[in-house]
Amino acid sequence: MKLERKAEIIAVGSELLLGQIVNTNAQFISKHLAEIGINVFYHTAVGDNPDRLKQAIQTAHERSDFLIFSGGLGPTKDDLTKETIAETVGRSLQLDTAAFQSIEDYFKKTNRTMTPNNRKQAMILEGSTVLPNRFGMAPGMFLEHESRFYMLLPGPPKELEPMFENEAKPLILEKLGSKEKIVSRVLRFFGIGESQLETDLEDIIDAQTNPTIAPLAADGEVTLRLTAKHTNISETNRLLSEMEDRILERVGEFFYGYGHTSLVEELAKACVKKGMTLSAAESFTGGLFSSWLTELSGASEYFKGGVVCYTNQLKRDGVGVAEETLNHFGAVSAQCAKELAAGIRDKTGSDIGISFTGVAGPNTQEGHPPGKVFIAISINGELEEVFEFMFAGSRSSIQRRSVKYACHLLLKMLESK
Amino acid sequence: MKLERKAEIIAVGSELLLGQIVNTNAQFISKHLAEIGINVFYHTAVGDNPDRLKQAIQTAHERSDFLIFSGGLGPTKDDLTKETIAETVGRSLQLDTAAFQSIEDYFKKTNRTMTPNNRKQAMILEGSTVLPNRFGMAPGMFLEHESRFYMLLPGPPKELEPMFENEAKPLILEKLGSKEKIVSRVLRFFGIGESQLETDLEDIIDAQTNPTIAPLAADGEVTLRLTAKHTNISETNRLLSEMEDRILERVGEFFYGYGHTSLVEELAKACVKKGMTLSAAESFTGGLFSSWLTELSGASEYFKGGVVCYTNQLKRDGVGVAEETLNHFGAVSAQCAKELAAGIRDKTGSDIGISFTGVAGPNTQEGHPPGKVFIAISINGELEEVFEFMFAGSRSSIQRRSVKYACHLLLKMLESK
Repeated sequence: MKLERKAEIIAVGSELLLGQIVNTNAQFISKHLAEIGINVFYHTAVGDNPDRLKQAIQTAHERSDFLIFSGGLGPTKDDLTKETIAETVGRSLQLDTAAFQSIEDYFKKTNRTMTPNNRKQAMILEGSTVLPNRFGMAPGMFLEHESRFYMLLPGPPKELEPMFENEAKPLILEKLGSKEKIVSRVLRFFGIGESQLETDLEDIIDAQTNPTIAPLAADGEVTLRLTAKHTNISETNRLLSEMEDRILERVGEFFYGYGHTSLVEELAKACVKKGMTLSAAESFTGGLFSSWLTELSGASEYFKGGVVCYTNQLKRDGVGVAEETLNHFGAVSAQCAKELAAGIRDKTGSDIGISFTGVAGPNTQEGHPPGKVFIAISINGELEEVFEFMFAGSRSSIQRRSVKYACHLLLKMLESK
Repeated sequence: MKLERKAEIIAVGSELLLGQIVNTNAQFISKHLAEIGINVFYHTAVGDNPDRLKQAIQTAHERSDFLIFSGGLGPTKDDLTKETIAETVGRSLQLDTAAFQSIEDYFKKTNRTMTPNNRKQAMILEGSTVLPNRFGMAPGMFLEHESRFYMLLPGPPKELEPMFENEAKPLILEKLGSKEKIVSRVLRFFGIGESQLETDLEDIIDAQTNPTIAPLAADGEVTLRLTAKHTNISETNRLLSEMEDRILERVGEFFYGYGHTSLVEELAKACVKKGMTLSAAESFTGGLFSSWLTELSGASEYFKGGVVCYTNQLKRDGVGVAEETLNHFGAVSAQCAKELAAGIRDKTGSDIGISFTGVAGPNTQEGHPPGKVFIAISINGELEEVFEFMFAGSRSSIQRRSVKYACHLLLKMLESK
């Protein structure tokens, strides 16, 4: 089948039209289709209304040849994407036994009773290929109809995103029979702003052809997505590596990892690699650093825990900061940070102690403004460093940036050790 | 002019179709239109291509009677929203002297030289009302054409949002001459699934007219948005309260708050109200509960901190769990949870101690499967309760659900105290 690659993304759900949620799925899918050379010409969002949905399907069928639907695959009455598509393209819905089994298993595992409307989620379009849902119940579907591709994906991003990357994208590439191998590599940077990074790389970015370079800033980090294509996969990879080398020559000090990783994941890997254990004393970050580490599986291999020393009493009795340090220097001080890092290492018997003390805001504390932050790192009693920052932003952004900087600092210390 | 209030939001810009930005404008406008009783039936996004834009305008003109455009009003060649609308509706573009003056002033103020293409931004649709842009150069426009409203807004959210609220919305209300007062109320529920809630309320939801009821599930919670309209505002509110009473009579035990709140915020409010302080001993949640509490400003009023007792050593030495409890019952046990809650309360001198011990996965621990969770709450030595759960899902979702359940349980205990 020859596709002209005119794609349209149709999001179904009244919550979009009421402004309750933002359509991040359209962005996610668009970005990934752009990478594999499929042009997205329209985004459409339509509510849980069968007539208007039917009309939207017909309009899309006329003007596009690849229709991607998100949402409306759930168990309730107002989930009607596949029912309406079935009616519009003249196909029936059939029970998929594998999908039904996995829904039954899900209910058994969670000790809940399956309500009859959940059976609806296992009904699939006649003649379609099922895309398994590893993070939810409703399966996705792929159908070829009148020289067009129809793809149905679930609405929740945490189900749609992995399904798209792992199931849908390989299937699309296979169907397109593309001989060109398109590969992307994402480089992640921390500690440099987007505009500074773009200025440092201006001539390279301006001259981009193959690979292309797409910068993106989010949550205090900047990523560069390099995308190369070639009929020979090893040539594709060579193009990427060559470009990566040119980039890292200029801004390598801010680079910390590839793809879907995070600062905290890279830190965890570094601890495992060095066989070192870690503990934390957190004042104004309130456990954020510890919770990020323990969100990763296998955390017990390197993380011992710590103290959320929100009060001075806990800094003293829980971690061992000297009373005179608190009286003389205050809790928001380099000296207190140092004693917290050494104290928590000592108390837990870990190799590395890390500490956070500062002012998250909105009020000043001990005469310091919000954003004043001290981070200390103590490694095996040999190496001890205190870092001082002045961050701007909301309470939550001061906390998050502090944790990210701590990961980055410790990561660089471990790398150079 | 009588409007049926069928609105369509048309975003213009190839950056949307390439997935470089997410269409937050559509959400923003939708939310505001819902509040004033205008139904948004479609969102459309189209690229900087005159043919496809023209087609999208024609489609929207046929199916909607209020067309709101965002983006494509800038000075460059690929900004072509008003040019294409002008052609489609058969009107000319004319220089607006006031708009031109304000663009000139802007350049003078910023000491920059005005390039000729900036004149383009001061061209407006013949017969339209200008919406001044206080945060940028391109003015917005409002036009009545063939019994339809056309509204043109700039793309950057920091220009569009204030223009919509301050200029567009009052103009729309004036044009509609609406006397009806529309009010929404959002009810938040926890501990009940979306399909169960809808089953419990099926007859009420099926019979909804005024107020309307819109359920939404996100992140383990369910919300119901009730929207009522009446010419008399106190009658609007009475309709909402009456519906709320009917709903809470059936599912009130799962209700926890209104609007934009969260479980942790409600818990914080309850602690402040009761004048009670709180501390936490967190094993598998690794500081997540503490970090959520300390993300809120004013946390020091009721939160003392705690211990992230990821290892047995810290459960024993850091919180005071008995060695024989760990040996006999194990760390993942009701007994250990109890001692952690009482121990952390004692250690920090707080009124309430809360503890988390369990298996986040992916591996089993002490023979327990991932998802086995114990949460204990100890209040002033008088009240002590342990709750046992079996959660499904990823590591992170087991952690998040545990923290949410803990907030909900403690909240209900404090309410009934």
